[in-house]
Amino acid sequence: MPALKINEIQEWVAFQVSPYRLKHIQGVAQTSVRLAKRYGLPEEEALLAGWLHDCAKEKTRVEMKQWIRKAGFHLDPEEEKIPGLWHPHAGAAMALVKWGIKDKGVLEAIRCHTLGSPKMGPLAQAVFVADFIEPSRHFKGVDLARALARRNLKEAVLAKASITIQFLFEKRMKIHPRLLETWNQFLLEH
Amino acid sequence: MPALKINEIQEWVAFQVSPYRLKHIQGVAQTSVRLAKRYGLPEEEALLAGWLHDCAKEKTRVEMKQWIRKAGFHLDPEEEKIPGLWHPHAGAAMALVKWGIKDKGVLEAIRCHTLGSPKMGPLAQAVFVADFIEPSRHFKGVDLARALARRNLKEAVLAKASITIQFLFEKRMKIHPRLLETWNQFLLEH
Repeated sequence: MPALKINEIQEWVAFQVSPYRLKHIQGVAQTSVRLAKRYGLPEEEALLAGWLHDCAKEKTRVEMKQWIRKAGFHLDPEEEKIPGLWHPHAGAAMALVKWGIKDKGVLEAIRCHTLGSPKMGPLAQAVFVADFIEPSRHFKGVDLARALARRNLKEAVLAKASITIQFLFEKRMKIHPRLLETWNQFLLEH
Repeated sequence: MPALKINEIQEWVAFQVSPYRLKHIQGVAQTSVRLAKRYGLPEEEALLAGWLHDCAKEKTRVEMKQWIRKAGFHLDPEEEKIPGLWHPHAGAAMALVKWGIKDKGVLEAIRCHTLGSPKMGPLAQAVFVADFIEPSRHFKGVDLARALARRNLKEAVLAKASITIQFLFEKRMKIHPRLLETWNQFLLEH
């Protein structure tokens, strides 16, 4: 990835989202790179995935569906019912279709950043965790999650899956089964 | 169900389990009947399902599998991997094969008492909840669950599903997806 292109992507992302969201995106990119250094993962890909993970978050439902269709991506029937779960796929679609990013690790990291996936690779794990612990996140347990992320990436994946599900219980929200599958799988791996 | 048969079943159950388990079973039977009265459900079936729900709990894995096979029941692939999830099916198998109980509501209540099911009917809901709140249960939140069960059975189903999943997170245990499906479905129904 030439430096010029990442600069261009950063400028473009800043026009896609509100200042509040941009601050979160910058935090996720910075944290993804830090985790990549810590765990020997490709840093440029971590930077790219971090910058692009939420680029579709403020698009309309219609726009998100258009991007997903253009990229030839498919949502599972449960995701179809929950529009809050469309932006990871739409973001990966924009990365692929608009920016020509074909790196499977980067696309996977964008697509899996909200629910995780039982099969996700290390870069996707790093972005999944970075989305949870970046500096502007404030919630009960975030400092513990940050400490876990420094010690063991899979432990931090488990913490995000379990804390998120508990948060959704409190909010009385429907929970996509993939988040539980992420818990079950990383528990076995650890 | 003639009174003689329920007496015979009660005596038999007392020989299948330890005194500790028997106390729990008596509590579940009593609570199931109380919930049946409260929600206009068949009381004899509630008594029977309560008495039989854990009758296979102290059987060996080999015995549980034999009963499940005799009844022609099937476990899903996730249940196959977790022996702690076999006793509801083995218990229903004993009810069917040994005691000739063919009432679908009773068999469903026994089979669904641990994980629930998104499709379970009112009797199964009552036994699922009774298993959680019977008098000898002591855990943080049990009094709230008891109060919910008096007001609204489906709310108590939601409480058992969410509190159980949180407990399994703390114990770092694998969680069967049906428990989450129970949460998701009863959330919609309410």
